[in-house]
Amino acid sequence: MEIFKQIPLYRYLSICNESGMQKTVLDCGAGGDTPPLSLFYSNGYTTYGIEFAADQIDKANTFAKSKGQDLNIKQGDMRRLPFENESISFVYSYNSIFHMNKNDVRTSLEEMKRVLKPGGIMFVNFLTVHDFRVGEGIDLGNNQYEQIEDGFPVIHSYYEPNEADGLLDDMEFIYKEDRVLERIFEGERIRQGFVDYICRKNKL
Amino acid sequence: MEIFKQIPLYRYLSICNESGMQKTVLDCGAGGDTPPLSLFYSNGYTTYGIEFAADQIDKANTFAKSKGQDLNIKQGDMRRLPFENESISFVYSYNSIFHMNKNDVRTSLEEMKRVLKPGGIMFVNFLTVHDFRVGEGIDLGNNQYEQIEDGFPVIHSYYEPNEADGLLDDMEFIYKEDRVLERIFEGERIRQGFVDYICRKNKL
Repeated sequence: MEIFKQIPLYRYLSICNESGMQKTVLDCGAGGDTPPLSLFYSNGYTTYGIEFAADQIDKANTFAKSKGQDLNIKQGDMRRLPFENESISFVYSYNSIFHMNKNDVRTSLEEMKRVLKPGGIMFVNFLTVHDFRVGEGIDLGNNQYEQIEDGFPVIHSYYEPNEADGLLDDMEFIYKEDRVLERIFEGERIRQGFVDYICRKNKL
Repeated sequence: MEIFKQIPLYRYLSICNESGMQKTVLDCGAGGDTPPLSLFYSNGYTTYGIEFAADQIDKANTFAKSKGQDLNIKQGDMRRLPFENESISFVYSYNSIFHMNKNDVRTSLEEMKRVLKPGGIMFVNFLTVHDFRVGEGIDLGNNQYEQIEDGFPVIHSYYEPNEADGLLDDMEFIYKEDRVLERIFEGERIRQGFVDYICRKNKL
């Protein structure tokens, strides 16, 4: 059994499984070398993915091909999801949404809510101000920074542990976890901060 | 695929798998209705478990039987592990060790280290002072409390986020996560605090 490195999605998958809803799932920011949509595919889900970066789509497709899976990941923009209103049971964005400024994060969350079916379940996580990179790079204000990642400039938005509560308060609360983790990265002990949310779209 | 509720053990399992060591694992506090040793068993591990409470062993065995697994869980005491020195590759205790006072926790950790092979990998987690039950019950000092759980008095020891570092500083650091989670329990939103460690026993 392959263990995916996106550990918090195991809890989300478990909650999705228990909901009894139709097994359709959308990943916003679905690319990368071990796409977690593969875990959902293996659990019987019809998968959809949106990814901005073409090279990350290629990596995901290479992985999926090696598993004999078609994860259905398309190039696209979270701020304008190419899906109908209330069309998908489960929508998530893992370690992805904070690569935009906070206005775009808000827009993207509204899009995720829009495409969710009533009663559908969302996972999203944010970087927190406990992260070791807060303060690094070009300060865009309100804990938003332009930083260098893999040689390219990227935006990272950092949130206070309760700051994103207000972005999700029109949904039913299921789970929240404020995590400060330390691990070895390139020989150094680094500290990262994340806050994860699982919430349910209200039924009409 | 069954998803186990002990989510942080997925990361530990992944690290164990990658180590290439012989797949032998010991769970200290192995009982309960969904014993995570079953996850290791499904991944090809020879499993051993120690559990103090006979009723929790029964629950675990009922689950294991339903899966056709023999998890090899015995009644025993973490403070005196019935295993030889340096005999097991992987030793963990999940949501269990903090049901003792801090002296007994220290003794149990030394036992876990004793039975680990050199290069073997340990997971252990602690309640933290961020938990909603800190201060409840009979105060035994130093954030240790006798509290009521399922109608019975039990000890809960709570740790400052960095307090247990010193109990593990003779091992190689791999991973630490300080988690404050909120979830719905019996209709109420509750806050729990845990700190998880993964570390490696030094080779000689």
